[in-house]
Amino acid sequence: MGRTSDAKEKILTAAHSLIEQRGYSALGVAEICKTAGVPKGSFYYFFESKEALALTVIEEHWAAEHRAWTQILTSDAEPLERLRQLFEATQATQQAGQESCGVISGCLFGNLSLEMSNQTEAIRERLQQIFEAQAQMVDGVITEARERGEVTVQDTRTAAQSIVAQLEGQVLFAKLYNTTAPLATLWTNCLALLGAQAPART
Amino acid sequence: MGRTSDAKEKILTAAHSLIEQRGYSALGVAEICKTAGVPKGSFYYFFESKEALALTVIEEHWAAEHRAWTQILTSDAEPLERLRQLFEATQATQQAGQESCGVISGCLFGNLSLEMSNQTEAIRERLQQIFEAQAQMVDGVITEARERGEVTVQDTRTAAQSIVAQLEGQVLFAKLYNTTAPLATLWTNCLALLGAQAPART
Repeated sequence: MGRTSDAKEKILTAAHSLIEQRGYSALGVAEICKTAGVPKGSFYYFFESKEALALTVIEEHWAAEHRAWTQILTSDAEPLERLRQLFEATQATQQAGQESCGVISGCLFGNLSLEMSNQTEAIRERLQQIFEAQAQMVDGVITEARERGEVTVQDTRTAAQSIVAQLEGQVLFAKLYNTTAPLATLWTNCLALLGAQAPART
Repeated sequence: MGRTSDAKEKILTAAHSLIEQRGYSALGVAEICKTAGVPKGSFYYFFESKEALALTVIEEHWAAEHRAWTQILTSDAEPLERLRQLFEATQATQQAGQESCGVISGCLFGNLSLEMSNQTEAIRERLQQIFEAQAQMVDGVITEARERGEVTVQDTRTAAQSIVAQLEGQVLFAKLYNTTAPLATLWTNCLALLGAQAPART
């Protein structure tokens, strides 16, 4: 029993890392099992298909990211300061990834959106929900800032989606140029997109 | 001779379409040749490898896009109006793609950046050059607008890269949600990122 759940965990860890590094299509079940150090037969005991595995990897990654976003975006800090902290955390995560494996792997959800969304409807649908949840969380903070008269933007939901789009676009450049430098623009660009002034730092 | 170059053209057309639809990793040479209707042996007569083919597909796609961007961004229209036309053209291209094949295939360069940039240095380098060229073209227009006192942004190059990032991020959402609706925000967001007012439409 202990051994069984250990094998599932090993498959998930290997798949997460391989999908981040090389995408989904390039991987085969045999390679995932080899990297995980488990016999290929055990794969289908835990996962119906490679797609089912990818969905579980997405789920686990989102669970962790959702926790981190919630912690930052619902803290006691002032609303705009929370957004600044979100971008800082994004940059720190990509930086840590680069230090541990030499390359910036980008955003798992952005990577899979461009690679997979036209190929499997189950993955497309889950990624749509995740990006909607992200926009909704950012929208909540913008709405608070708006109530405080700190932003001039009218349509907070569209603004939230544009901020997530800017984040995905700059993460794309961070991955392509293998440097986190593009992410340093996120805060200034967020203020511009919101029609906001930088708050006084406390 | 006529037949030979015809076969190369068929391989390129098939590869372009397959890479747009399904990415690079998921494709094999056999499938490309089958779609192109040419014998597999002829592939290696024209291309050293699948990577060499992908580089040629990128080159041809950029040649066409560069022509379109140049035509729009160096026209006689006022600078900010040219940027508006660029976003309109982007939306029209994605719309036409959706009408012809049912799905929005996104930006070939963005797709390959997230799928491939950590896997082949030759492709990474070419995509870096293309996005630099795009930012440079947009920078030229922003600089003109700045000389006319129409934008308040100081660092025109960083602003240009942020506009291209916004475009890539919104194209990602267009692909994921299979609708061009996110692209309708590009113009307003561009003005916000530049600290500009919408010019009077003529």
